[in-house]
Amino acid sequence: MNSLDHLFDSLKKAQARLELQTRHAKDNALRSVMAALDNAREDILAANRADVERARSGGMKEALIDRLALDSGRITGIIDSIDTIIRQEDPIQKVKAGWTMPNGLFIEQITVPLGVAAIIYESRPNVTVDAFSLAYKAGCAILLRGSSAALESNRTIVRAIKDGLSRGGGIADAVALADSGSRDEIDIILNARGKIDVVLPRGGKELIRRVVENARVPVIETGEGNCHIYVEPSADIGNAAGIIENAKLQKPGACNAAETLLVRREIAADLMPLVAQRLAGKAQLRCDERSKAAIGSVPAGLDLRDADDSDWGTEFLDYTLAVKTVDSLDEAITHINTYGTKHSEAILTKNLDSAGEFQRRVDAACVYTNASIRFTDGGEFGFGAELGISTQKFHARGPMGLEALTTIKYRISGSGQIRP
Amino acid sequence: MNSLDHLFDSLKKAQARLELQTRHAKDNALRSVMAALDNAREDILAANRADVERARSGGMKEALIDRLALDSGRITGIIDSIDTIIRQEDPIQKVKAGWTMPNGLFIEQITVPLGVAAIIYESRPNVTVDAFSLAYKAGCAILLRGSSAALESNRTIVRAIKDGLSRGGGIADAVALADSGSRDEIDIILNARGKIDVVLPRGGKELIRRVVENARVPVIETGEGNCHIYVEPSADIGNAAGIIENAKLQKPGACNAAETLLVRREIAADLMPLVAQRLAGKAQLRCDERSKAAIGSVPAGLDLRDADDSDWGTEFLDYTLAVKTVDSLDEAITHINTYGTKHSEAILTKNLDSAGEFQRRVDAACVYTNASIRFTDGGEFGFGAELGISTQKFHARGPMGLEALTTIKYRISGSGQIRP
Repeated sequence: MNSLDHLFDSLKKAQARLELQTRHAKDNALRSVMAALDNAREDILAANRADVERARSGGMKEALIDRLALDSGRITGIIDSIDTIIRQEDPIQKVKAGWTMPNGLFIEQITVPLGVAAIIYESRPNVTVDAFSLAYKAGCAILLRGSSAALESNRTIVRAIKDGLSRGGGIADAVALADSGSRDEIDIILNARGKIDVVLPRGGKELIRRVVENARVPVIETGEGNCHIYVEPSADIGNAAGIIENAKLQKPGACNAAETLLVRREIAADLMPLVAQRLAGKAQLRCDERSKAAIGSVPAGLDLRDADDSDWGTEFLDYTLAVKTVDSLDEAITHINTYGTKHSEAILTKNLDSAGEFQRRVDAACVYTNASIRFTDGGEFGFGAELGISTQKFHARGPMGLEALTTIKYRISGSGQIRP
Repeated sequence: MNSLDHLFDSLKKAQARLELQTRHAKDNALRSVMAALDNAREDILAANRADVERARSGGMKEALIDRLALDSGRITGIIDSIDTIIRQEDPIQKVKAGWTMPNGLFIEQITVPLGVAAIIYESRPNVTVDAFSLAYKAGCAILLRGSSAALESNRTIVRAIKDGLSRGGGIADAVALADSGSRDEIDIILNARGKIDVVLPRGGKELIRRVVENARVPVIETGEGNCHIYVEPSADIGNAAGIIENAKLQKPGACNAAETLLVRREIAADLMPLVAQRLAGKAQLRCDERSKAAIGSVPAGLDLRDADDSDWGTEFLDYTLAVKTVDSLDEAITHINTYGTKHSEAILTKNLDSAGEFQRRVDAACVYTNASIRFTDGGEFGFGAELGISTQKFHARGPMGLEALTTIKYRISGSGQIRP
């Protein structure tokens, strides 16, 4: 017996009941959670203020404080995200395929919940609600292991969720917060074979590495994004510059931001001055020799450096863009498949052959033509919310919505068949 | 650098090329492999004789020798299984879903190969060909790690496969045999993060446990089957006895054989005498008190024992059937979800409500009504062959054919969209 065994046990029992709920019942329970969070708004804000004060006096950086802090508008956004999940189709008990064998056996592949999920995440309290809502709609129980910095916020939010579930005819035990604050908790979760069906780490590189290295239960790796934009000679130059600016500047700390621009030799002299103008005063450029030369006269305020080879493998997560000149589509694809993290990659081109070859050969969760890679996101894909962005190939890939929390069961209907 | 790094590297490169092959090209290469195996028939038989002699003089049990030994008929069967895989649809570059977002982004979910697979398996040389053929058709490269007992057989078979691929315009480097015979090889494979995309252990409980416990790469757990047949009062008794006999006796060493019979109190006195007759002289019955009493006069030759609680959790893999009397559908489902291994479970009933509740609540890869559970098999499901039967919920479940070796990629087509 460890400190979490009673939670594992009650989550498993609750999941077995939740699995049998209709969409109607699950949606009603989620609507009741929306109301409960709205009612608990002042309590949540007070708890969050306590967390923020504690974090600030503990020396947390303001950028991280910003991720932790809630205000009434953010709470409204969190509540609204539940509504988008309510509006999604039920992912459970869908027939994915079905056929009849020559002996008359009728075989169907039916979607069922994955079971009990655990999410280990850092500061942001909105993850608490998003992860719970997706799990509940998918018929999964969920163990939430937030950061100690957000402990009071998460406790108050989870209390409101459970209250909403109880009032709305839902199953309150289908959600639990692991809140002892001890690091041992993470190890217990990572070793809970037979009790936890998937662990989702969501946070910085260090957390994800620790989880992936130590887990004995299935893990979905998320988040690391060394993403590229490759620009071909046929691309619309003005459009390309706009996409590059968006992919780099709109949210540089996100995993789907661009880290390296690959520019074809033939258009470097046309594109690079535009890129330099757009990013001057806003981001640092780390250019190879040819792309640097292609800029020509350096615009005022441009922070221009020489790239070195280590830049190609770096996820800056900052106002920094590496730039490399390539001689061919093949060179661009090879570079991406060598240095990329299989997250989001884009080609800007008007050439159909190039687009097809890029989308076929680049090994990544999301491969774009002529759009900003910042769209790699559950909300932008229409999933309502996301559990994270999977950078692995196994089980789930790309933005994870409800489908990532399902598996299948074969239902075989016979009339007395025996195997000859 | 370890001893397998050159293989990992050439498999990865070969897989990138194989991924781009058309179905036509892959099927032609597989047809050429069929011819090459046919040509190598005498060499394979000679190599297999050497393996069998070595195994026998090493004291291997005859039941295991039988799994290792090939004859010309078995080789024909192995070659024919390639043909059934050729006839399967290409699992790659299928559009699983597609939609357009309000901003005009067109998003498609496309199937792509999982990448490089590794299979770690015991004696049977047919697995060498089945695993290779499924992987090749799915666009995956495969590393084969057979048992040292089958080393000469596997070497000769893999040589023929590579020869067939070369002659048939295929990619010979997409298959490799790890043949040093050292146990270190397994540990290297289990730790090959970024080089191997999935490991499939196929063999005894001990092998699977070792792989699952130690792997740092994704694993699909296979094989353990503590499977049940539950008989309701409404079932056709004669039919039920036939299904029970088939599920227990047709191949008791298979993971999809029945281990425990759950019989409803109301029909125990009707069913048990028939079951006792069918199994007398063929299998041992381990009965609880009520099912034992229900047999009445014990038929000649029946090996009848008292069940103890440890029998409910035992996969006998033998001519042994545990029997328990239950008072309700709920008791049967609870028993199965407590002791089962989530493999294959059946209800025999004419009652629609019971069938629905059983199929919904039993947590297993394959849930049957009114048929023998021995049908849980890639061939019997129409998949041509199988990589094994997954008993996990993550990524693949039940008999694994081509689909288990695929993942998805999102293809996003834009016209200049940036994220606001």
